[in-house]
Amino acid sequence: MQQHFADQLIQRIRSLGHPLCVGLDPHLDRLPELFRCGSMSPSDPQTGEAVEAFLAAILEQVAGRVAIVKPQIAFFEQLGWRGLRVLENIVLKARQHDLLVLLDAKRGDIGSTARGYADAYLGVQPAIECDAITLNPYLGRDTLAPFLECAHQHKRGLFLLVKTSNPGSGDFQDRRLESGLTVFEAVAESLSESSQGLRGSTTGWSSLGVVVGATYPGQSERIRELLPNALFLVPGYGAQGGSAEAALRGFVRGAGGILEGGIVNSSRGILFPSGSATADAKRWERAVDEALDRSIDELSTAATA
Amino acid sequence: MQQHFADQLIQRIRSLGHPLCVGLDPHLDRLPELFRCGSMSPSDPQTGEAVEAFLAAILEQVAGRVAIVKPQIAFFEQLGWRGLRVLENIVLKARQHDLLVLLDAKRGDIGSTARGYADAYLGVQPAIECDAITLNPYLGRDTLAPFLECAHQHKRGLFLLVKTSNPGSGDFQDRRLESGLTVFEAVAESLSESSQGLRGSTTGWSSLGVVVGATYPGQSERIRELLPNALFLVPGYGAQGGSAEAALRGFVRGAGGILEGGIVNSSRGILFPSGSATADAKRWERAVDEALDRSIDELSTAATA
Repeated sequence: MQQHFADQLIQRIRSLGHPLCVGLDPHLDRLPELFRCGSMSPSDPQTGEAVEAFLAAILEQVAGRVAIVKPQIAFFEQLGWRGLRVLENIVLKARQHDLLVLLDAKRGDIGSTARGYADAYLGVQPAIECDAITLNPYLGRDTLAPFLECAHQHKRGLFLLVKTSNPGSGDFQDRRLESGLTVFEAVAESLSESSQGLRGSTTGWSSLGVVVGATYPGQSERIRELLPNALFLVPGYGAQGGSAEAALRGFVRGAGGILEGGIVNSSRGILFPSGSATADAKRWERAVDEALDRSIDELSTAATA
Repeated sequence: MQQHFADQLIQRIRSLGHPLCVGLDPHLDRLPELFRCGSMSPSDPQTGEAVEAFLAAILEQVAGRVAIVKPQIAFFEQLGWRGLRVLENIVLKARQHDLLVLLDAKRGDIGSTARGYADAYLGVQPAIECDAITLNPYLGRDTLAPFLECAHQHKRGLFLLVKTSNPGSGDFQDRRLESGLTVFEAVAESLSESSQGLRGSTTGWSSLGVVVGATYPGQSERIRELLPNALFLVPGYGAQGGSAEAALRGFVRGAGGILEGGIVNSSRGILFPSGSATADAKRWERAVDEALDRSIDELSTAATA
């Protein structure tokens, strides 16, 4: 039987000693020499093969070293239906490597359409079986219903955008409401009850989590006050400028005094580290391996500090 | 050369005399007997074929009678990569029928990911070539940049979610800010300059449009004040309970005294009208044809009233 998402994730993180999540964002123009083939244009069928070979190799490197990977679906959609087939294969491979899979899709739609997305990625017979998904709350709480149902029935995880890592995230998220709360605080507050309802019996952490950018540590602390048991998905660490300390700002001391309460994502920092743009397989492996070591060290150190 | 999206759309609407947009939302459980084959489960390859045959027949019916169709990508994603291949084929067929295509994807993401989505659907070599797309603004204005670039360079259209048609759309969209505006008004206001910059030289309408539910006519009028030249995409007409009059509330008198300024979507009302759940091709055609007639009549009448 499928285990509770947050329990499973936190238990794996505890045994690994760090919350690193590897983002699978296959930027075509950054793909290492080793994997490039054909024109590398999005419409060329060979491009999908190159992306699949690259990500399969990445999965080999990260298997057993991280708890979870996060494919960003936009980069697969860019290759059309062939890209979605690559995503399907990569998600299967990740599961075979015993990695949890969080689909970064940021979906949000109404009624029967939301149901369509929920069925596609979290349902009983999903097109691509993921453990968790990212969602956009702007359309309102009723649009979360089919996803919450999947979270309860099929033990999936949900990460709602609250405070994103981009420079413009303040445009609407930081606006102050008459009530005194900002918009992002109001979103966080509105998730409180659902989040409590999805807490795991082993760790107490909730499968209804939130996205909180590493670039806004002050806001992380505020969101943690509002949602004491929500898992955080923290993007913006590394390439986007957030430090390990900033990324862990909304985490709390758990068993053994180690900071826990979510995952910290790195995409480009692991997928395309310096020295990895090579045609030499050994050098490529070393470059990715070292990047992985560095991020894991940095996050383990910050989590125990 | 590609013509300006809003100019093209409005000119077609003027010559047809109504703003009906047909939503392509292939609910599997509603597919008429005539098109069903195999198990109709999302994972069965035959299901994609059934959906494609159904939508191809719908396109035959609507070609020449409406200006634009709106595939809802969730229903295609539900079928995995095969679904995206069906979408690709259906979008091609729609273009062959000289229909404009608005992809209802409600995408919204940061930096390079937003670029991935823009390239996928509106770029130079898109995976699926659409004329316009729906977008979610919650992440902030910087996340619109790649889409605005496509709108300017490739004459595409964008529809930003402002006030959606669902019952829960008030949860965040209607919250009142300290400034006195609601969140949806603040979103509309923030789009003003970009919308002005995308006005067509022939009709004056802008290719940066907004989504405004037919279920909230009061809010439509308010958004029209804030964005006098933005096209409206109005969902919620028909099956969701909005009347033709309510749907046109944010439209303005154009040439010949006819209300114009956007499109009114009907999905289920056209795709699955009463009497269409048949195995008889002639009866199916008649049912869809009559549903199309009814909606067109209703909207033409309301637009000239």
